[in-house]
Amino acid sequence: MRRKSFEDMNCPIAQSLELVGEWWTPLILREVVILRSTRFDEIQTGLGIAPTVLARRLKHLVDAGLLERRQYHDHPPRFEYLPTEAARDFRPVLEALARWGRRWTPATDG
Amino acid sequence: MRRKSFEDMNCPIAQSLELVGEWWTPLILREVVILRSTRFDEIQTGLGIAPTVLARRLKHLVDAGLLERRQYHDHPPRFEYLPTEAARDFRPVLEALARWGRRWTPATDG
Repeated sequence: MRRKSFEDMNCPIAQSLELVGEWWTPLILREVVILRSTRFDEIQTGLGIAPTVLARRLKHLVDAGLLERRQYHDHPPRFEYLPTEAARDFRPVLEALARWGRRWTPATDG
Repeated sequence: MRRKSFEDMNCPIAQSLELVGEWWTPLILREVVILRSTRFDEIQTGLGIAPTVLARRLKHLVDAGLLERRQYHDHPPRFEYLPTEAARDFRPVLEALARWGRRWTPATDG
């Protein structure tokens, strides 16, 4: 990503963006927290995101403490991503964003 | 920006990110809506952002209907960016993000 790091900015909005501001991340959190899609394949289908991009973003979210990775099938290996308390607590942000979107963006009903 | 467009996704969160999801944008809105810094130079100093990047993001926000550009000085020409109703209405999103950041990111007090 071509961007300056916000880590040194002493502002909770900047710090939040540092953790979850990347473009796809809020939509991945929407899948996991609101739509309860936790399996890699479900999230990938839900978003129409490239698997390599999704794998990278999920790893970032696991490292950031927002998701917990768990294997739910052995052969072949399959993984799901469970929201932590930090991720569940992000729900009001997604809801505020959705309310804003319903009012100020082209007609949506998601 | 290396990203897929969310314009075709029928979801208010995706549509909102399409308008304001870019990395710097929420911080620019924070300057204008919460800190009431409306002049180009103030915003630039507040964020420590490169002037060319800021100019591009401000133009995007004007085109998206979130800011209104107004010249406040003639010689030399100086511009300020006033929040529209859509931008002011984004405040709850910023506040939700700030609450989350205070709880889940390294100590901040902004």
